Amino acid sequence: MSAQDRVPVGIIGASGYGGIQLVRLLLEHPSVQVTYMGGSGSVGQNFADLYPHIAHAVNLPIENLEPEAIADRCKIVFLSLPNGLASKIAPRLLAKGCKVLDLSADYRFTDLQVYESWYKESRTDTEVNSKAVYGLPEIYRDRIATADLVGCAGCYPTASLLALQPLLKQGLVDPSTIIIDAKSGTSGGGRQPKTNLLLAEADGSLGAYGIASHRHTPEIEQICSDMAGQEVLVQFTPHLIPMIRGILSTVYAKLRDPGLVKEDVLTIYKSFYRNSEWVQVLPKNIFPQTKWALGTNLCYLGVEVDERTGRVIVVSAIDNLMKGQAAQAVQCMNIMMGWEESLALPKLTFYP
Amino acid sequence: MSAQDRVPVGIIGASGYGGIQLVRLLLEHPSVQVTYMGGSGSVGQNFADLYPHIAHAVNLPIENLEPEAIADRCKIVFLSLPNGLASKIAPRLLAKGCKVLDLSADYRFTDLQVYESWYKESRTDTEVNSKAVYGLPEIYRDRIATADLVGCAGCYPTASLLALQPLLKQGLVDPSTIIIDAKSGTSGGGRQPKTNLLLAEADGSLGAYGIASHRHTPEIEQICSDMAGQEVLVQFTPHLIPMIRGILSTVYAKLRDPGLVKEDVLTIYKSFYRNSEWVQVLPKNIFPQTKWALGTNLCYLGVEVDERTGRVIVVSAIDNLMKGQAAQAVQCMNIMMGWEESLALPKLTFYP
Amino acid sequence: MSAQDRVPVGIIGASGYGGIQLVRLLLEHPSVQVTYMGGSGSVGQNFADLYPHIAHAVNLPIENLEPEAIADRCKIVFLSLPNGLASKIAPRLLAKGCKVLDLSADYRFTDLQVYESWYKESRTDTEVNSKAVYGLPEIYRDRIATADLVGCAGCYPTASLLALQPLLKQGLVDPSTIIIDAKSGTSGGGRQPKTNLLLAEADGSLGAYGIASHRHTPEIEQICSDMAGQEVLVQFTPHLIPMIRGILSTVYAKLRDPGLVKEDVLTIYKSFYRNSEWVQVLPKNIFPQTKWALGTNLCYLGVEVDERTGRVIVVSAIDNLMKGQAAQAVQCMNIMMGWEESLALPKLTFYP
Amino acid sequence: MSAQDRVPVGIIGASGYGGIQLVRLLLEHPSVQVTYMGGSGSVGQNFADLYPHIAHAVNLPIENLEPEAIADRCKIVFLSLPNGLASKIAPRLLAKGCKVLDLSADYRFTDLQVYESWYKESRTDTEVNSKAVYGLPEIYRDRIATADLVGCAGCYPTASLLALQPLLKQGLVDPSTIIIDAKSGTSGGGRQPKTNLLLAEADGSLGAYGIASHRHTPEIEQICSDMAGQEVLVQFTPHLIPMIRGILSTVYAKLRDPGLVKEDVLTIYKSFYRNSEWVQVLPKNIFPQTKWALGTNLCYLGVEVDERTGRVIVVSAIDNLMKGQAAQAVQCMNIMMGWEESLALPKLTFYP
Repeated sequence: MSAQDRVPVGIIGASGYGGIQLVRLLLEHPSVQVTYMGGSGSVGQNFADLYPHIAHAVNLPIENLEPEAIADRCKIVFLSLPNGLASKIAPRLLAKGCKVLDLSADYRFTDLQVYESWYKESRTDTEVNSKAVYGLPEIYRDRIATADLVGCAGCYPTASLLALQPLLKQGLVDPSTIIIDAKSGTSGGGRQPKTNLLLAEADGSLGAYGIASHRHTPEIEQICSDMAGQEVLVQFTPHLIPMIRGILSTVYAKLRDPGLVKEDVLTIYKSFYRNSEWVQVLPKNIFPQTKWALGTNLCYLGVEVDERTGRVIVVSAIDNLMKGQAAQAVQCMNIMMGWEESLALPKLTFYP
Repeated sequence: MSAQDRVPVGIIGASGYGGIQLVRLLLEHPSVQVTYMGGSGSVGQNFADLYPHIAHAVNLPIENLEPEAIADRCKIVFLSLPNGLASKIAPRLLAKGCKVLDLSADYRFTDLQVYESWYKESRTDTEVNSKAVYGLPEIYRDRIATADLVGCAGCYPTASLLALQPLLKQGLVDPSTIIIDAKSGTSGGGRQPKTNLLLAEADGSLGAYGIASHRHTPEIEQICSDMAGQEVLVQFTPHLIPMIRGILSTVYAKLRDPGLVKEDVLTIYKSFYRNSEWVQVLPKNIFPQTKWALGTNLCYLGVEVDERTGRVIVVSAIDNLMKGQAAQAVQCMNIMMGWEESLALPKLTFYP
Repeated sequence: MSAQDRVPVGIIGASGYGGIQLVRLLLEHPSVQVTYMGGSGSVGQNFADLYPHIAHAVNLPIENLEPEAIADRCKIVFLSLPNGLASKIAPRLLAKGCKVLDLSADYRFTDLQVYESWYKESRTDTEVNSKAVYGLPEIYRDRIATADLVGCAGCYPTASLLALQPLLKQGLVDPSTIIIDAKSGTSGGGRQPKTNLLLAEADGSLGAYGIASHRHTPEIEQICSDMAGQEVLVQFTPHLIPMIRGILSTVYAKLRDPGLVKEDVLTIYKSFYRNSEWVQVLPKNIFPQTKWALGTNLCYLGVEVDERTGRVIVVSAIDNLMKGQAAQAVQCMNIMMGWEESLALPKLTFYP
Repeated sequence: MSAQDRVPVGIIGASGYGGIQLVRLLLEHPSVQVTYMGGSGSVGQNFADLYPHIAHAVNLPIENLEPEAIADRCKIVFLSLPNGLASKIAPRLLAKGCKVLDLSADYRFTDLQVYESWYKESRTDTEVNSKAVYGLPEIYRDRIATADLVGCAGCYPTASLLALQPLLKQGLVDPSTIIIDAKSGTSGGGRQPKTNLLLAEADGSLGAYGIASHRHTPEIEQICSDMAGQEVLVQFTPHLIPMIRGILSTVYAKLRDPGLVKEDVLTIYKSFYRNSEWVQVLPKNIFPQTKWALGTNLCYLGVEVDERTGRVIVVSAIDNLMKGQAAQAVQCMNIMMGWEESLALPKLTFYP
């Protein structure tokens, strides 16, 4: 594709960790051209001032968040902003004919009251919201294909839902017994400096947070309920791990049929994901390291059944900034545009 | 106490991570004197050859594991050896009148068949084993006080059992719903070089291991069953974290009384551990970092109740090499000898 | 010493990393009692709100920085504040008869013009400054013993000057050839959140900073010049290392006598520091790890001579927050008060 | 290029860290096909048994190191073996018409006596060695283009020589004053388990090693001497840093002309490397983080002049396994084959 045929794309919120991932992926994408970088705190600076290592590849300024100006120069817009901002911008971009992919939580909820009660923001864009599709292609690929607005899935939900999907869709487990013990690197906390994310605080240590109260809980529950065909509550506990990137989700549930053994469940998983290029079901007795997924769009799943307790345990590993954020957004874009789904999506990490 | 009144102590397996902790603690203990360091691979070397930083404080050779020679020079012996070795040495030390504290799994099981089936070792020292006491003072202080042989508690069991004790002893939870999702630094894997413990492999990554099969499972179950007064099976999943020291145990269980709120459960915990100097129950909404416990004999507990799901979640943090190993062994020794229980036990970490 | 005989001590700037170290050391010091904790941003909070892990040991509020109020309740005051603040407070504390130990740079320079040009602060307390003693006991122990005001040595200078002292005092090297390549953990950057100190930025990476311009340069040069008896300029380059604590200083200089071999230089070092409990000269071919010094007041030195190039290379390791800051301040206090110099100073790290 | 037109390539020593990087790069290289993976300890295993995360992309067995069998199936062979082995295999591969790229030290020295004295191996392949070219394209591109045997540059030498090249070729510094203080992640120590490379040992700590004796010293000196046109001795000190990948080399030298300021030297560097795609000279006052180079073939250079001391300081950052090893080998291959030099070479890291 020649340069002038590339589709113009904007990245709003380019200076955060989601933004820098999008920049890298889109610079190497054969069908698009980055034409707009928007921000707030860093307007007027050049992107390469913020990230000098990338100066040899990109030389764009950070511009204002003015939706009409963005829409004039972009056909596709990625919004990588704090929660509550996308819903102020997206309707204006959509009205001008842009396709919009939002990386925040704003467009992940079908019921805005759930959003409002967990995020403490009021919302009036009910109609726009009703057209948004949840951006997790391995669950909602068909809907994404025809969407103009995608609310990309959260990082913890991506890891957890891919682990749970075969169990819930095939009715293998009692949904009231689901426990998700998740662990994330600190980049999930963003690039704004906070004391608890300092290396001197977070390195060499480990803790839980948001117990029984983390905002990804209702997001996971909404999709689990959709998959199970009944209302599902989950126990979700995130932990902060002394590493930069990666999420490991350890998921527990009681099997409905105590006669199922791990070979059975593995067969079900392999069959379920046999056509899913980005979900790798590991062989028996192999469980993933988060490191395996770093820099890629892959999700690795390891499956175990404890015959003593009647539980299935699924361990899921992703890169929180890639399959958990920017790469999955690019995957959604590829689907929305009718392009080959794997365009520009890395699948080999640089181990170790 | 003058030097000649100090009780002579031996450390067998001094060169490993358990050993070096014991050395540090016992060098600073006012009532003992280290008179024997035993090892296998490093016999003939000086301890300071292995750990040059400690040359200014200790200057003993690593000697053979000859029980009678050890007993001639020691009244108290710490065994910090691979599983299966202590049970070959301890009976001969006991026969010579030594008090023995074993840091391996050999003397943790009342039922040797359980040991044999999980550890794949056969055992014939049934009578000696029957006199061993499980070395977790906050549960078995009285028995430890009169014991000559203590099988010190494992690291994961210590963190998990202290979290579970009030729940099980007071019948607050359904024991069949207990899930323990535990996370440990890599020093728990010992000092023998293994590929998966290399910094280049383990840093920046996270994984589960021993799912549904880790040997600490039956140890936790034995003590839980004793506390609950009924047979208890637990779901135990350990994870390897990219840090050196520390264990965080996140424990889940269904409350029997759905009307209990977190203030109730916190009150019960504070009351239960009010006289336990080494167990710190944190205030409401505060959850521990493993870093808070590093270098100390403390266990920090944070308690939450999820009213939506009816579960209690307890988060427990210890230093795996201290409360999870060497410091707890010294605590047991202090109790066995009738000394002040807190002698030489650190309670302030060097944060950060 | 009974509680009422303990000397009352204040820690001003208790909430930073220097402060929390001082708190820990002074809580365990047998001759003092902490009676005042002062701060600015956190006034009104309890110290245990900032550091919940320490609630079992200390329960004091953070109070205002009002010098006369402090002096009423303290005989000794540690100032652990940003540069430029101590010189506003110390004169008033001294006037009320307190002994003052300042951990900032304010009282490290005999020539205030040097301070003013490197620190961009103007100073009028010339007379008070002229009475300050540089707080590095292994160089200025006698002067510290009679001082009322000590400007405690910086972290990089401590590591570098202890490495250079024998070379400069004995005229072994050409001072114009000194290069100090130093490496520090990120806690040296303090607890105020900054983007470059986030784990997500600093972990897994390494960089130099302050090349040819770091403020510790004139401090090192002042003391080197004093030791050499001639003006000395040094090349000093600090680096930020992905770890919390510790400084390693690698020092290079040309030997004046090319016939000296490493055994000679080692002999000189061992002799020079034979009575210095806190400086450990390592055996031939052994070089220190920063980890060996963590949590202690020790400085480890390794010495090499390269006969091919005629250079001596000295590697020095300290804990930047202990010998490089808080523990050295306590050592100075012990000397100022005529107490045993090693009181409450740790000398065994908890390895690994 | 269709699959059957791809050039068949062998990777000998595929299971180490150099090997896994080569596998990743060559799998994504459009002009080659990996047809042979050779090893020793892991013969008979499948590559995906060693690295399960890569099973979706490669499915080859590890085969024997039999040169004639290799030559039958490969036109290009990468040797990633311990020092001393390549020189036993390369002559036989060359005799069968293969092009050989050796990642060990065997073919880096024009004078085999230097090799023999530093590596303690005897060598008889003088004639083959005389045809080897030193594999650092930014210095020897023309010679590499016509070579059949390339001895790829070491990791520390690559970082150090790229920093020194403009200074030495343009005679700007006194070569007798060169000091190279280098810092490397632990992956440079390989994947064979060693105690000092365990996370529990190496994390949170820092030390120097090989002071005045590291084997990269004569390698650096050989190329420096060639660039300077006179014999050069350097002071080289490597350090082990608690991170996986990356090398930072801090290079010091006295300027011959004390009137040069940093703008002058920066201009010289930018001009010198203006056509070098893989060497990025940073703007004034910007110095590289090793993280900027991770996963790429780039070398970042920051330049400073200290007018007080008359020294130039150059800081150089690379990924030790990429520009310092595997990616540079692929760059050499591209040049040897007359392909576009940048084929399959990454130039955007995944920050953070």
